[in-house]
Amino acid sequence: MAEQTKYLLDESDMPTQWYNIVPDLPEPPPPPLNPGTGQPIGPEDLAPLFPMGLIQQEVSTDSYIDIPEAVLDVYRLWRPSPLYRARRLEKALGTPAHIYYKYEGVSPAGSHKPNTAVPQAYYNSVEGVTKLTTETGAGQWGTALAFACSLFDIDCEIWQVRASYDQKPYRKSMMEVFGGTVHPSPSELTEIGRKILADTPDTPGSLGIAISEAVEVAASHEDTRYALGSVLNHVLLHQTVIGEEAIAQMAMAGETPDLIVGCVGGGSNFGGLAFPFIRENLAGNLDCEILAVEPAACPTLTRGVYAYDFGDTAGMTPMMKMHTIGHDFVPDPIHAGGLRYHGMSPLLSHVYELGLMKAESRHQSECFAAGVEFARNEGIVPAPEPTHALAAAIDEAKKCIETGEEKVILTALCGHGHLDLAAYDKYLAGEVEDYEYPQERIDDALTRLPNLDL
Amino acid sequence: MAEQTKYLLDESDMPTQWYNIVPDLPEPPPPPLNPGTGQPIGPEDLAPLFPMGLIQQEVSTDSYIDIPEAVLDVYRLWRPSPLYRARRLEKALGTPAHIYYKYEGVSPAGSHKPNTAVPQAYYNSVEGVTKLTTETGAGQWGTALAFACSLFDIDCEIWQVRASYDQKPYRKSMMEVFGGTVHPSPSELTEIGRKILADTPDTPGSLGIAISEAVEVAASHEDTRYALGSVLNHVLLHQTVIGEEAIAQMAMAGETPDLIVGCVGGGSNFGGLAFPFIRENLAGNLDCEILAVEPAACPTLTRGVYAYDFGDTAGMTPMMKMHTIGHDFVPDPIHAGGLRYHGMSPLLSHVYELGLMKAESRHQSECFAAGVEFARNEGIVPAPEPTHALAAAIDEAKKCIETGEEKVILTALCGHGHLDLAAYDKYLAGEVEDYEYPQERIDDALTRLPNLDL
Repeated sequence: MAEQTKYLLDESDMPTQWYNIVPDLPEPPPPPLNPGTGQPIGPEDLAPLFPMGLIQQEVSTDSYIDIPEAVLDVYRLWRPSPLYRARRLEKALGTPAHIYYKYEGVSPAGSHKPNTAVPQAYYNSVEGVTKLTTETGAGQWGTALAFACSLFDIDCEIWQVRASYDQKPYRKSMMEVFGGTVHPSPSELTEIGRKILADTPDTPGSLGIAISEAVEVAASHEDTRYALGSVLNHVLLHQTVIGEEAIAQMAMAGETPDLIVGCVGGGSNFGGLAFPFIRENLAGNLDCEILAVEPAACPTLTRGVYAYDFGDTAGMTPMMKMHTIGHDFVPDPIHAGGLRYHGMSPLLSHVYELGLMKAESRHQSECFAAGVEFARNEGIVPAPEPTHALAAAIDEAKKCIETGEEKVILTALCGHGHLDLAAYDKYLAGEVEDYEYPQERIDDALTRLPNLDL
Repeated sequence: MAEQTKYLLDESDMPTQWYNIVPDLPEPPPPPLNPGTGQPIGPEDLAPLFPMGLIQQEVSTDSYIDIPEAVLDVYRLWRPSPLYRARRLEKALGTPAHIYYKYEGVSPAGSHKPNTAVPQAYYNSVEGVTKLTTETGAGQWGTALAFACSLFDIDCEIWQVRASYDQKPYRKSMMEVFGGTVHPSPSELTEIGRKILADTPDTPGSLGIAISEAVEVAASHEDTRYALGSVLNHVLLHQTVIGEEAIAQMAMAGETPDLIVGCVGGGSNFGGLAFPFIRENLAGNLDCEILAVEPAACPTLTRGVYAYDFGDTAGMTPMMKMHTIGHDFVPDPIHAGGLRYHGMSPLLSHVYELGLMKAESRHQSECFAAGVEFARNEGIVPAPEPTHALAAAIDEAKKCIETGEEKVILTALCGHGHLDLAAYDKYLAGEVEDYEYPQERIDDALTRLPNLDL
């Protein structure tokens, strides 16, 4: 009998509810604050940006929220996503460890992003929104939202961080195939964009700047709202379908994970996989280590502070208590565009502060090496983002060679790298540089955190 | 109860045999001829190019051939591939037709090509071959073979048609990620390449030329063999896993196809899907129409002749009786690089001559339009090649709006277009040109068919 490679769920076994970790946590997360008053925000503060359906989810204390039938119907295009056991990689490494990966690259955008793009477009459409604005870093989120908007007949306007816009032009093409409109950010189309271009014409841009541009346009147009691809509670909520499926699939495989490892940028892919497992840890059903891996060039969890900061560069969003290296952070040009955000999901930051997970940082060259090793054995070229998790998983599996431990490692392979091949080109040509984010830039940026003594 | 979108087979239901249509045909296909003697070739004529395991399959008259366990083991990385019902596309079209698509884009290369790359690398490896040479047009085949070679520890050297090499640089990157070495063709590395460059320095290249280069290198090195990604019997044999799975999946869906439509270049994806269904047609179990769609710019089935010709430009391969527009054909630069071959699988040509299938040709702009419509509804950006089949499927589905027929259409979605986004860019910018291959060029090329009166 051949060893099984994939663990597939039937469509009928797809989760029909999203999981909200908030009520299961020993302490509630600190509330977002109004940037004008310094007081906790209410739904009305968010209404210019988000539809009420999503605002309710953002502040919900229910443990489970039903997934609308119209959303499930779209999820079925690619969900349930497969869980694989990386038997060839294990063999190549010579490790007794069992390496599993939950693969989200089967989605329209090629990553986990459509898991939240679809419900976001849906809730906006039922409230009559005709246009969504957003930012995108790696381009995955813009692609996902453009696709979701095309299904629900909403216009989609995307500000793409200039560094990514230049690094991978075909992400723009893909957004346009799905009907989206794409601008490099900063752009001349917004007040904040014009201001930043005037000050620093050669800026590579940042997610913080692109968010400011998209928020500015949404806030100033009646039927337009804004959509965020990570960071917020409702985004992580939507991504929990990943973890719920993975729990069922690990049961199919007859194993329980000892270690769950994923990459973190804004935190949504990681939270999506980890939160259902953390629920099981908290309930005493599991005892697995939860590890987030971030780039050394953007070390929000490992070297940032846990403090109130803005979600965007211009300071237009509510202040959120989160791990941050400063809202005016402009990243070095690492290739993992999806991991270059100055902050970290407030909910994930809170979970981290509660000691329910660990974090480490890695340099991109070792991550690309892991990506190539993975590709040559498993046949999937990973996006640069999840190679951070693969590098950690491979290191852990190598340790098991000495200890002999049959450790069960579950890693989040959140997307493929078909649109990131220029980055692999550079890596194979020996042209990928590593960046350790300098402490003085963190120290400097932190002097500009918002003043809470208003 | 929600309507099902995907039909997935278990790994345990994966076909364990390839299907050979030859013994089921009313007449045997004409044999290949030795280019020197004009006599039917024997296995020894092919031995400098292929391992005996594949040569035996090339000439086999067995109906079924066991798939080696080592090959099944790799197939499990992505097979069985999914069958989808395109419910959103049907709804968008407003058609009563049922449109199914068998999706091969889940493979490492992103297309059907690994189905044959893996067994080809395997059979070479067991006979001690240390290096494989090949050509690639769209880049799908080169990617597939580079991946397969990496699994069986064989070097892989690829000549990529220059037009494709320039149009999509990231295909080269992907081949390199999988460990392959890539040259634009024609190259200075071979005698035929140097000759063609001397005559026509600006040539965009052709599959025929790239084949000549790869064959020249393989034939002149002891432990090196050549691998072909389409056209030959053993290649189509390997691809029949597609059709065998699709038969089982259509049964899961509780439907029988009225029309099977696929694109044709060399014919392997088409044959792979269609041959098992033609078997069922011949046995009286089914009565479904089989339709091949080729580009108007390379109309081998619809406007070529059925005659003996060389498989390559230099005339180094055996002469094969096939539909051809002449072995020195240099294609116009359409984007479907995988459909730009001067010939057509001899076996598929024979099946066509027997009246067991039909063919038509289409211009690329209407195919891109179909690809965009498909992407916006189904979430998969198709490669330019299968958009030819999608255009035909959509037309057929539109006809059903008037007739009210609930026609069941099964189409071969042989690959994704993640590496073809530059082509979509051009299409969306209105810059895609249509090419009707001129009759005088066909007439002229046919004057240079090989002379059989040796």
